[in-house]
Amino acid sequence: MSGTFLSKSEITNLLVQAKQERKISFEELGKAIGRDEVAVAAIFYGQHHASPEDIAGLSKALGLNEDQLSYQLSNFPDRGSDVQMPPKEPLIYRLYEIVQNYGQAYKAVMNEKFGDGIMSAIAFSTKVDKEVDEHGNTWVNISMRGKW
Amino acid sequence: MSGTFLSKSEITNLLVQAKQERKISFEELGKAIGRDEVAVAAIFYGQHHASPEDIAGLSKALGLNEDQLSYQLSNFPDRGSDVQMPPKEPLIYRLYEIVQNYGQAYKAVMNEKFGDGIMSAIAFSTKVDKEVDEHGNTWVNISMRGKW
Amino acid sequence: MSGTFLSKSEITNLLVQAKQERKISFEELGKAIGRDEVAVAAIFYGQHHASPEDIAGLSKALGLNEDQLSYQLSNFPDRGSDVQMPPKEPLIYRLYEIVQNYGQAYKAVMNEKFGDGIMSAIAFSTKVDKEVDEHGNTWVNISMRGKW
Amino acid sequence: MSGTFLSKSEITNLLVQAKQERKISFEELGKAIGRDEVAVAAIFYGQHHASPEDIAGLSKALGLNEDQLSYQLSNFPDRGSDVQMPPKEPLIYRLYEIVQNYGQAYKAVMNEKFGDGIMSAIAFSTKVDKEVDEHGNTWVNISMRGKW
Amino acid sequence: MSGTFLSKSEITNLLVQAKQERKISFEELGKAIGRDEVAVAAIFYGQHHASPEDIAGLSKALGLNEDQLSYQLSNFPDRGSDVQMPPKEPLIYRLYEIVQNYGQAYKAVMNEKFGDGIMSAIAFSTKVDKEVDEHGNTWVNISMRGKW
Amino acid sequence: MSGTFLSKSEITNLLVQAKQERKISFEELGKAIGRDEVAVAAIFYGQHHASPEDIAGLSKALGLNEDQLSYQLSNFPDRGSDVQMPPKEPLIYRLYEIVQNYGQAYKAVMNEKFGDGIMSAIAFSTKVDKEVDEHGNTWVNISMRGKW
Amino acid sequence: MSGTFLSKSEITNLLVQAKQERKISFEELGKAIGRDEVAVAAIFYGQHHASPEDIAGLSKALGLNEDQLSYQLSNFPDRGSDVQMPPKEPLIYRLYEIVQNYGQAYKAVMNEKFGDGIMSAIAFSTKVDKEVDEHGNTWVNISMRGKW
Amino acid sequence: MSGTFLSKSEITNLLVQAKQERKISFEELGKAIGRDEVAVAAIFYGQHHASPEDIAGLSKALGLNEDQLSYQLSNFPDRGSDVQMPPKEPLIYRLYEIVQNYGQAYKAVMNEKFGDGIMSAIAFSTKVDKEVDEHGNTWVNISMRGKW
Amino acid sequence: MSGTFLSKSEITNLLVQAKQERKISFEELGKAIGRDEVAVAAIFYGQHHASPEDIAGLSKALGLNEDQLSYQLSNFPDRGSDVQMPPKEPLIYRLYEIVQNYGQAYKAVMNEKFGDGIMSAIAFSTKVDKEVDEHGNTWVNISMRGKW
Amino acid sequence: MSGTFLSKSEITNLLVQAKQERKISFEELGKAIGRDEVAVAAIFYGQHHASPEDIAGLSKALGLNEDQLSYQLSNFPDRGSDVQMPPKEPLIYRLYEIVQNYGQAYKAVMNEKFGDGIMSAIAFSTKVDKEVDEHGNTWVNISMRGKW
Repeated sequence: MSGTFLSKSEITNLLVQAKQERKISFEELGKAIGRDEVAVAAIFYGQHHASPEDIAGLSKALGLNEDQLSYQLSNFPDRGSDVQMPPKEPLIYRLYEIVQNYGQAYKAVMNEKFGDGIMSAIAFSTKVDKEVDEHGNTWVNISMRGKW
Repeated sequence: MSGTFLSKSEITNLLVQAKQERKISFEELGKAIGRDEVAVAAIFYGQHHASPEDIAGLSKALGLNEDQLSYQLSNFPDRGSDVQMPPKEPLIYRLYEIVQNYGQAYKAVMNEKFGDGIMSAIAFSTKVDKEVDEHGNTWVNISMRGKW
Repeated sequence: MSGTFLSKSEITNLLVQAKQERKISFEELGKAIGRDEVAVAAIFYGQHHASPEDIAGLSKALGLNEDQLSYQLSNFPDRGSDVQMPPKEPLIYRLYEIVQNYGQAYKAVMNEKFGDGIMSAIAFSTKVDKEVDEHGNTWVNISMRGKW
Repeated sequence: MSGTFLSKSEITNLLVQAKQERKISFEELGKAIGRDEVAVAAIFYGQHHASPEDIAGLSKALGLNEDQLSYQLSNFPDRGSDVQMPPKEPLIYRLYEIVQNYGQAYKAVMNEKFGDGIMSAIAFSTKVDKEVDEHGNTWVNISMRGKW
Repeated sequence: MSGTFLSKSEITNLLVQAKQERKISFEELGKAIGRDEVAVAAIFYGQHHASPEDIAGLSKALGLNEDQLSYQLSNFPDRGSDVQMPPKEPLIYRLYEIVQNYGQAYKAVMNEKFGDGIMSAIAFSTKVDKEVDEHGNTWVNISMRGKW
Repeated sequence: MSGTFLSKSEITNLLVQAKQERKISFEELGKAIGRDEVAVAAIFYGQHHASPEDIAGLSKALGLNEDQLSYQLSNFPDRGSDVQMPPKEPLIYRLYEIVQNYGQAYKAVMNEKFGDGIMSAIAFSTKVDKEVDEHGNTWVNISMRGKW
Repeated sequence: MSGTFLSKSEITNLLVQAKQERKISFEELGKAIGRDEVAVAAIFYGQHHASPEDIAGLSKALGLNEDQLSYQLSNFPDRGSDVQMPPKEPLIYRLYEIVQNYGQAYKAVMNEKFGDGIMSAIAFSTKVDKEVDEHGNTWVNISMRGKW
Repeated sequence: MSGTFLSKSEITNLLVQAKQERKISFEELGKAIGRDEVAVAAIFYGQHHASPEDIAGLSKALGLNEDQLSYQLSNFPDRGSDVQMPPKEPLIYRLYEIVQNYGQAYKAVMNEKFGDGIMSAIAFSTKVDKEVDEHGNTWVNISMRGKW
Repeated sequence: MSGTFLSKSEITNLLVQAKQERKISFEELGKAIGRDEVAVAAIFYGQHHASPEDIAGLSKALGLNEDQLSYQLSNFPDRGSDVQMPPKEPLIYRLYEIVQNYGQAYKAVMNEKFGDGIMSAIAFSTKVDKEVDEHGNTWVNISMRGKW
Repeated sequence: MSGTFLSKSEITNLLVQAKQERKISFEELGKAIGRDEVAVAAIFYGQHHASPEDIAGLSKALGLNEDQLSYQLSNFPDRGSDVQMPPKEPLIYRLYEIVQNYGQAYKAVMNEKFGDGIMSAIAFSTKVDKEVDEHGNTWVNISMRGKW
């Protein structure tokens, strides 16, 4: 299998278009390949290395040629190059704002609880859950788990 | 009660020094005033508005003059002005890196789960928990809960 | 319906060209689809999510294929990515200058009137009205309404 | 009357401390000197030129020496130098975000309504009002009026 | 008349190429359409709104299709987006340097002469004249006239 | 004569305070030392080298010790270090905006009129004049003259 | 041999694609042309000048036309233009973080050991080795050697 | 033990002055406290957490009060906040330049050797060695060892 | 002669390719057209205005169509827009570093030798010479000559 | 000898004040200590390591205490941290502009003359000479000599 490499945003577009035509959600894709939905989305945006099993599963679920997808995803991901910082997108900005406002508090509490060190952003997993409280308000719950 | 306002970092130093001399942890302070430890640290760094009850509790726990503390904390917080972005501090950088790398994935999954909108960074709470897995590895668990 | 996604500026061009050929104003478009004219312009520039009704109305008013428009506008908007900050465009710069000069005053007054918190830029609507005063001078009136 | 000029932030501190000791609101100050409350706050932050009448009124209301205040406020204001852009403060950031997201829509609608030109940020006035809707939700209403 | 909009730099190229082929100067163009030569150049670079009369005159003088030019210039100009600041081009940098070095002096003198306010950059005209002094040295004279 | 050098802003403050106490205008200072008022202001802000005659004249007009002033102004000026770019001050921003919007037009016209080269910002003089037109509107006229 | 020059990233893509199709590693390429593997990768990314021998060896190993490769690589490299700083890619960021955190310590130790001077980044070689410790943990060993 | 916290640069100055008065090298300090000399320098610049043993050893070797040093070094380090990036200091810039030029090559080789992942900059040690080659040229050898 | 203008980098590529195919050096080109080799290179990179004689000479030496080259080079150069600052290219960075490190020393010495003023970067010429010293070391000698 | 280290700008002020009181030029200082005048100025601004002989000579020529000066200059210089880039000072900006405009031309000519490599900015010397041409015009001649 050979040919020109697609750029990261071209690969994202390829995957998003296939997903949209199949009307399949990240949650369904996650179930289809045995991964959390955020991890699937992270593969879409070039932030996760896709294993051969991931590629096989995604090809099948999205109706894409497995050889072609494998060829395009075969390089190790060049993570992190797509979001402009500070983010202009309001939803992503809110996450950025949390780091800006709570960064020192997180550090102070973590150092107190764990001693000197850092939380890994690579040996790391994350989930997003939806909660509706008793007043009918919707809340986002983000869980992050990183190795110390 | 009157006098010159301390700058935000002077207030932080005042609180950190008192905490260090009393050898009291954020967790203990949190219990003393009925707040999560991250929220206490956020007050230390000027990111949370301290209620009169918070101020009374902190004054007592830290051995600080309540009137003086109340006067200094009486303005609404000028949040977010202390962390330089991108953060140079490695631990805070890791949180920033998560936003940079997972920002689009979070947005894609949240839009799919919740529709159009954002997660609030103000109507928001967060916790840090420590986990030791079966291999003895330590993991940080961060939970964030924000209104949609 | 399938095909390559247009970039945000390509969609803007598509809509602006159709509007210009039809010689239809934002005000007329707003009336046609039951939205304020600023909201219509915000859809043109990718800052508002267009509902199926919005898309149906715009397609009709602008003579565009509804399926194609729906396909292109079906993703949740990636808001905020088009204006370079600080704005070089003089009219937009004046709005930016208002934030720069009055930002602290707005914050001080809002905190005093509303307590601690923020005004939402998402649960938000805005209007632009024209006023001619008794001396014949023209004034712009901008109204913004955001949830606290 | 002579002496060293205070810096802008020292003048702000002087005024805020006096206001806080007197427990007087911007609204009350505004009524005392016949100005809108946002304009009063703008004088506090060095964004408005204070007229001799403003200075006389503020001195009286805040219990400050009029000669001293007049000397310190006698220079024309060096507007706009205090808010760091993009703003890190969440409330001010929301206003900035409105400009970023709606800037092109405002320009498109204003050009259509008013022709070529700009809205002045100097021949300009603004107000902040509080609204509680039928569901008990609080809304901020900002009105801006600028000469075209 | 319809079709794809040219970008601002494509329009500039279109006009500059026509001007170059016709070997016509800005001064001659200015006389042809009854505008100052700097204003003509500003239209070329997308900084002035071209009236129907301007477009008719330029089409004739430059041998361009009037309908096509009108269609391309029909949008209100997105002023100011083309010069990178600080300017790398030496001649434009010299003008920037004047603002940097003399900015405070201009402000101090204008405030003293005119009171509080600003000079408009929109209700504004400017000219460039050539002077040869008695020693044979060439001088540039720039005149700017802006509404206070 | 010896001692610690004042910083540039301390020298500015020294001069501005003396000017304010004497209630003398830049225009009057200019006449007193035989210089244009903008040049006087430029000396105040450290943008012009002050000759011994300038220093003698200013000392006399402002009631400052000539030896002390001479010692402080004896270094060659470190021009241009005080205005933050882009300027946040609205009046100075308007001048900056003129360069941004008209920069290419000025260059195009100057190259056409003068050939290849630049206008000096050093061998340069400038004046500010006030004009009231027949409708009672006030206009600022800035003249700049720079060697080619 | 003639034709259009490829851009640096096009040359990188050309080489990476050939390498991937041949399933040949940097280590194997290094052995094939008598160079360290990091040096080979640096040629791929336009950071090393490729000698005629390097080009001959790479052409053969990668199955590329030697004349064409020679033509494209014949210019002296425009080093350093491809990594955005600060790096968004997490692995490269970690190296950047080492410089940020240890920079002063390196300087202090080097000045003490070597006196005043610098370590060359041009007369420089580097290697990457893999180490597995007694607990089965993998470590990266980077060696850098630069002329003082 | 209590009192005002010194800033990071004040602590650095305190340590550097003591070291200079004692005429003791980083190498000697390293031997005295059983640490590599680069690690000692990193403690001086606030980039390493100093253990109680480190503090005891440094106090003794440098003739500083152990209680005072312990109090000042008792907070977890706020790493990385002192080097301005890009570094203006030539020696540190050379290290930065290595990351800029070799970053992609390091990543490519490491991904090939180690698979997907990163090298830790925290579980990390480093050494600097001096080499004189057969021609009398001096070379710096930097070794870095980070966990994968 | 007419047609689309090439961009500056396209003109550079055109000239570099012709030079490379003809295997002609800047020094030879300089002799062919009676210009210093640095000036020739500066024309290649769009930093010098090419006179009709320069264009005639270059066309002949490089085998390019004179009319076409004249048309493309007929605009006055938009100098300085191609090097990203700070330069990432190591050789150009070294020159930048000289300005950064020696800038104040140059200014201090020039002011002392020449009085107040500047050295022109426009009325300016420069040369590069090669020197081999008695130890066989190669040195670069750069001479710059600018009008005061 | 001990005490608090002066900052780099405090050392510069100390030296400049002594030089000014003694009315001694850089040229005279250079002759007094056997160094070029630019090198002397570079020591004043913290860009050169001062040898014990330099310190002895400067102390004598400037009437400063040698022990004190030695103590303050005993650290290796933290070069390059004082000029803000891009430089706002017009004279230093002209040197910066030369790098910006001629950078690529210098690189192209040096690569052609010297092959691949760089010119050192550390193994480097420089001189400034004054020339008056036959028309009475003054020219600055800068010579730079750096190892290849």
